[in-house]
Amino acid sequence: MIRPLAISMGDPAGIGPEIIAKAWAARHSAKLPPFLAVGDSRAIARVWDGPTVRVSDMATAVSAFDEALPILSVDDAGEVTPGAPDVEGARCALHALELAVGLVRSEAASALVTGPVSKAQLYSIGFNHPGQTEFVAERCGVAGANAVMMLAGPSLRVVPITTHVPLAEVSGLLSVDLIVAKGRATARGLSRNFGIATPRLAFAGLNPHAGESGTIGREEIDLLEPAIAQLRAEGIDATGPFAADTLFHARARAGYDVVLCCYHDQALVPIKTLHFDEGVNITLGLPIVRTSPDHGTAFGIAGQDRAHPGAMIAAIAMAGEATQRRAQPAN
Amino acid sequence: MIRPLAISMGDPAGIGPEIIAKAWAARHSAKLPPFLAVGDSRAIARVWDGPTVRVSDMATAVSAFDEALPILSVDDAGEVTPGAPDVEGARCALHALELAVGLVRSEAASALVTGPVSKAQLYSIGFNHPGQTEFVAERCGVAGANAVMMLAGPSLRVVPITTHVPLAEVSGLLSVDLIVAKGRATARGLSRNFGIATPRLAFAGLNPHAGESGTIGREEIDLLEPAIAQLRAEGIDATGPFAADTLFHARARAGYDVVLCCYHDQALVPIKTLHFDEGVNITLGLPIVRTSPDHGTAFGIAGQDRAHPGAMIAAIAMAGEATQRRAQPAN
Repeated sequence: MIRPLAISMGDPAGIGPEIIAKAWAARHSAKLPPFLAVGDSRAIARVWDGPTVRVSDMATAVSAFDEALPILSVDDAGEVTPGAPDVEGARCALHALELAVGLVRSEAASALVTGPVSKAQLYSIGFNHPGQTEFVAERCGVAGANAVMMLAGPSLRVVPITTHVPLAEVSGLLSVDLIVAKGRATARGLSRNFGIATPRLAFAGLNPHAGESGTIGREEIDLLEPAIAQLRAEGIDATGPFAADTLFHARARAGYDVVLCCYHDQALVPIKTLHFDEGVNITLGLPIVRTSPDHGTAFGIAGQDRAHPGAMIAAIAMAGEATQRRAQPAN
Repeated sequence: MIRPLAISMGDPAGIGPEIIAKAWAARHSAKLPPFLAVGDSRAIARVWDGPTVRVSDMATAVSAFDEALPILSVDDAGEVTPGAPDVEGARCALHALELAVGLVRSEAASALVTGPVSKAQLYSIGFNHPGQTEFVAERCGVAGANAVMMLAGPSLRVVPITTHVPLAEVSGLLSVDLIVAKGRATARGLSRNFGIATPRLAFAGLNPHAGESGTIGREEIDLLEPAIAQLRAEGIDATGPFAADTLFHARARAGYDVVLCCYHDQALVPIKTLHFDEGVNITLGLPIVRTSPDHGTAFGIAGQDRAHPGAMIAAIAMAGEATQRRAQPAN
């Protein structure tokens, strides 16, 4: 039986409802697999006048998908005003996320795509995870260090080893164990989700020019080199550390399948510079497939029909492909 | 009288001699102004069989330029082996740099373009400046903080506020005074060298998401915001701090003339990702025009006719244009 992908709508006042609707409208040209939206149907109706159908089971979602956007409605967003987030909207976003995760964990849906949420709004209702990734990992029973956030665009994949922490704390947070754990999960994830038999992992140095043999910082010698050696001893094709500034131009990108970066902006600057409208966030190391568009709620343009659905379309397509690859016996 | 640009050859065992010769060969198609190479003529002869002419005065260099590459030879590189740097080569590179700076300081030559040197080799002969930029600044009587390294490509200009220091030390090195000094010199330099009447300066935050209102680090609030306010009070169009990851894609780049970045890789990653073969390093805040190709000696490919002259050509062209702009009365 064909199962649909479950897409949580994200904050109902953000651009999530609009880009989900636009992705459905592009389902044929983008060859998207069947999906359903999980969230308050009024948030979609507020920004889109295309056909929708409320569903309560997955088989109906699949059979209705060609004619209308299937919505599993949670009906608790209150009055939705695009661009004006509120507490009710945050509760609705969390409810939709919880429900979508449950559908995938129970194998009713095939994969999870998450729409953009406002962390500030979620924190205000007591959400205590750093982000959706950690929430999903916990619901899947996976430790945070083993869940890896990878950003992927058409010509580049990057993994930030540390994420939303002050830059001054990055050096202290890096450890051989952390780097090895991220490397292992990344290699395994690229095999399972992307069908790459022996993924080539390139590591970026922390310091300018990767420390220039220790003259501009020692993290490369003390942390990255031992971690890379350990990964290689395990049979993983890990190389580096390389100077970050010469690692992301077109010729360099041909030499690896993913770059593991020491901190948030080292990973996010190159991917968003190259692939701003099509970047996908995929979580590796989970028992389920989970992707999301690599952008935020964009409250400033919500409800104005200006949101670009490219990243959502790419996230849905990538989730569909990863689901197919995982189903193949070789993996 | 037309004066030539002076190009120091850089390390004779690096790709400097080759890319200078290739730039001369492209002088017509790239519409380059007359220049002369300063260094050991044997380093050019070793990698190139085109016409050269040894000159000892600037007028001869200009008149000979159309027919042959003019070289002011310093004759002290010893036996040059491309790809194998040695102490004699380092001495030759330093001698050539000193001579080229002197030609420009004395107004015999119009502008300085520096070829790539090996810092490790220079340090071994007692060179005690962090790089050529600081050496040139000192010879010009300019304090280091007021000399600004800007990297420029066809669609992006960036200034790193801190440069070759360990990443963990960046936060401690940033100060309101330093940020203001770099902002002032950048604004003035864009006016003088690029003819931009009111340059738009965008500042990147240090932390992920520019600190998210202080929840991921406070340098934005404590350092960048006050510095930007001070610059604005002086009439400079300074904005930010902005999240670095969404600052460098095509639509964002339309909104500013330069980005001032907190650290080396924040500036160098986007410019080299976008403009790897055409990036120019221009020093702002000097009494002279100084540019260089934004790459190193590339010993690994020296002497193999594989070096791409794009950045050297762009550096020569930019030096020529900046010299013309500075000569105009309005500036």
